[in-house]
Amino acid sequence: MVTSTALLTDRYELTMLDAALRDGTGDRASVFEVFSRRLSGGRRYGVLAGTGRLLEAVERFRFGDAELSWLGQEGVVSPATVDWLADYRFRGSISGYREGELYFPTSPVLTVEGSFAEAVILETLILSILNADSAIATAAARMVSAAGDRPLAEMGSRRTQERAAVSASRAAFIAGFSATSNLEAGRRWGVPTMGTAAHAFTLLHDSEEAAFQAQIDAMGPSTTLLVDTYDVMTAVETAVRLAGPELGAVRIDSGDLPVVVQAVRARLDELGATGTRITVTNDLDEYAIAGLAASPVDSYGAGTRLVGGSGYPTAGFVYKLVERADADGTMRAVAKKSVEKAGTGGRKWAFRLLEDGVATEERIVVADEQPAVPDARDLIVPLVVDGAADPAHLGADGVRAAREHHARVVRELPPEAKRLSGGDPAIPTALR
Amino acid sequence: MVTSTALLTDRYELTMLDAALRDGTGDRASVFEVFSRRLSGGRRYGVLAGTGRLLEAVERFRFGDAELSWLGQEGVVSPATVDWLADYRFRGSISGYREGELYFPTSPVLTVEGSFAEAVILETLILSILNADSAIATAAARMVSAAGDRPLAEMGSRRTQERAAVSASRAAFIAGFSATSNLEAGRRWGVPTMGTAAHAFTLLHDSEEAAFQAQIDAMGPSTTLLVDTYDVMTAVETAVRLAGPELGAVRIDSGDLPVVVQAVRARLDELGATGTRITVTNDLDEYAIAGLAASPVDSYGAGTRLVGGSGYPTAGFVYKLVERADADGTMRAVAKKSVEKAGTGGRKWAFRLLEDGVATEERIVVADEQPAVPDARDLIVPLVVDGAADPAHLGADGVRAAREHHARVVRELPPEAKRLSGGDPAIPTALR
Repeated sequence: MVTSTALLTDRYELTMLDAALRDGTGDRASVFEVFSRRLSGGRRYGVLAGTGRLLEAVERFRFGDAELSWLGQEGVVSPATVDWLADYRFRGSISGYREGELYFPTSPVLTVEGSFAEAVILETLILSILNADSAIATAAARMVSAAGDRPLAEMGSRRTQERAAVSASRAAFIAGFSATSNLEAGRRWGVPTMGTAAHAFTLLHDSEEAAFQAQIDAMGPSTTLLVDTYDVMTAVETAVRLAGPELGAVRIDSGDLPVVVQAVRARLDELGATGTRITVTNDLDEYAIAGLAASPVDSYGAGTRLVGGSGYPTAGFVYKLVERADADGTMRAVAKKSVEKAGTGGRKWAFRLLEDGVATEERIVVADEQPAVPDARDLIVPLVVDGAADPAHLGADGVRAAREHHARVVRELPPEAKRLSGGDPAIPTALR
Repeated sequence: MVTSTALLTDRYELTMLDAALRDGTGDRASVFEVFSRRLSGGRRYGVLAGTGRLLEAVERFRFGDAELSWLGQEGVVSPATVDWLADYRFRGSISGYREGELYFPTSPVLTVEGSFAEAVILETLILSILNADSAIATAAARMVSAAGDRPLAEMGSRRTQERAAVSASRAAFIAGFSATSNLEAGRRWGVPTMGTAAHAFTLLHDSEEAAFQAQIDAMGPSTTLLVDTYDVMTAVETAVRLAGPELGAVRIDSGDLPVVVQAVRARLDELGATGTRITVTNDLDEYAIAGLAASPVDSYGAGTRLVGGSGYPTAGFVYKLVERADADGTMRAVAKKSVEKAGTGGRKWAFRLLEDGVATEERIVVADEQPAVPDARDLIVPLVVDGAADPAHLGADGVRAAREHHARVVRELPPEAKRLSGGDPAIPTALR
């Protein structure tokens, strides 16, 4: 059985559908666009994530008997619309930025084409997935950038909703994290998993020594021992005494990290455990990670701050109708004029202009057909054609491809884009 | 088929299990406690939510063939531990605060008793659910308090992960919201759903008038019309002209709300639509809601800020071993001594002291057996006894009970607890 995603939807999507089917406008060819008016928190760039998950969720956006009978019973839509939904599957087309791609204000990261009826009801699902995953990927990319060559593990599952934890692990991996604590992210999306022990394991035993010995017996000396349950320096000595210099790593989860890390490194070296690594995991965000750049840390674990998008838990994407057919079939650009929320109508294309391999501009072109733009990377690829998703974007293979794509394109950013302070986007957006 | 929750778990839970089963300490009777060291953001009280969801998720915490073969294949645990997991279901006991209850720093909101092995592996799932849902409920309660008698609808689904959206709707309802946009929250948890149309519906039509007429035809004149796609005052006039004075409501989603709302109310009244309500929905949080107290708003919709916990997306709960058996079976209090994260060992009980019905103190008592505390409300109830969950806490009935409980106990707070500014907890916690 495959779980339906159809009710992960705001009621107004279905009431709009109901009214549009009734007056015939539901059949009008339509173009919806996903974009963000600005980058949260004065960030220099955003990282798109969630596309692969979205394509799988759209495939499962079907109304089965359970969904239909509930909608009918609650009177959400008319019986005629219930019948229409029974046959529904998305038969239109979706194109957009590759997963892992960077985006800037008004970048058209996803374009959905189909009848108004078939496209409007996907709004909630599309925005839930892209807003959540891109917020995490954007925060993760900043942490990866701050960490330099040192690897980062995602360990925020205990600080976010249990299913959001899985997608957060996936998004962080795409943005360059090396591993996750979350087992379902490992099984479902192929993210490498890691983790050894919490403080409870030490407290369970009659002594810290007994706990360390038990862990070494089970996992071998290359394991990571948690050394801050009682006294850190005593624990480091016990750890090396039991595991020998092959001890894989020690983990520190509290205290004034720059000071503690320095002292632990010195003690490990004195004890001959020069190859033993130090990993730190205490509510780290990109600023704390940057603050440890000069400390002898070997790897970081980031949790709470990462899964909260480092202060910006949603990416600010909206889903707007930008073009639709008139009664006679002629396509017309449309846009609302609300105060501070005005949009730009029309089907759009997007290019990243490059000079010597460095990004200089996000060029957005309003046009019916794809234009040619020299010295630019074409940003929009087909994702779903006539209802069929390109399998390259799905599952663990899609995640791997997105991670590789991200690693490639993040290198195009100008150096000032790596600044952590708030400011302007790394490159300007130009709408032509 | 019921979906397993077993892999919504950090790898270290299973590696600890593996090592503890190997050295025999996994059988030690253990007491784990969930508490938060502080209230995020200087809030005056927290609202516990997620308990009912948690009990259902614990019931589904079983390792089927798919989970076991993946764990074996990845080498997460030994073959002996795979066999142990195949038979696993939680057979211990869980007690705690009722869902919807208030909590304060160090309140023991959940206590899990069982063998170390069976209790430790629930950590991730317990914290994911309680941290996420309580963060939302706490933010929601502040918005409800700021809104006074005016109803609030939750409409944040597009701004949070698609499954987190469902639990966020549920948590907001428990904390006093009246309805949600999220259909799955309606079906799964019995939360009333609402919603009519987005800007796309107006843009789809050849004119705003045509869109309004289509919506009125489908939903009747008591519907809510969205009036800010083009010019608000023109839209209000069109709306009343088409629907008559029976027009249910107008929704405003942009602009300088106090000014716009005042003007719209005046125009509606001039047009004779004195019963037509005004609902506003523009990125509201508790401060924006409080700022509209003097405006003629009839109801609020809150989304983005609510589902982000109004700046604090996680509640800060931790899951700590506080007591466990020695090799000879004697129970011993345990606690780590990490810098700034030291805990208090021992099984705890909790009471809310009241004077004339007003809460004065959170009393926490370390004791093996439940003590008697006069003039106090006993906060801890049994939730799972010998592996069996109390059905009163489950499903839509559990949600309704939690909402009623919350409405009752929030009235016990002293008046200063309703302040939105950061500060001390509304009542002190005393540990005896």
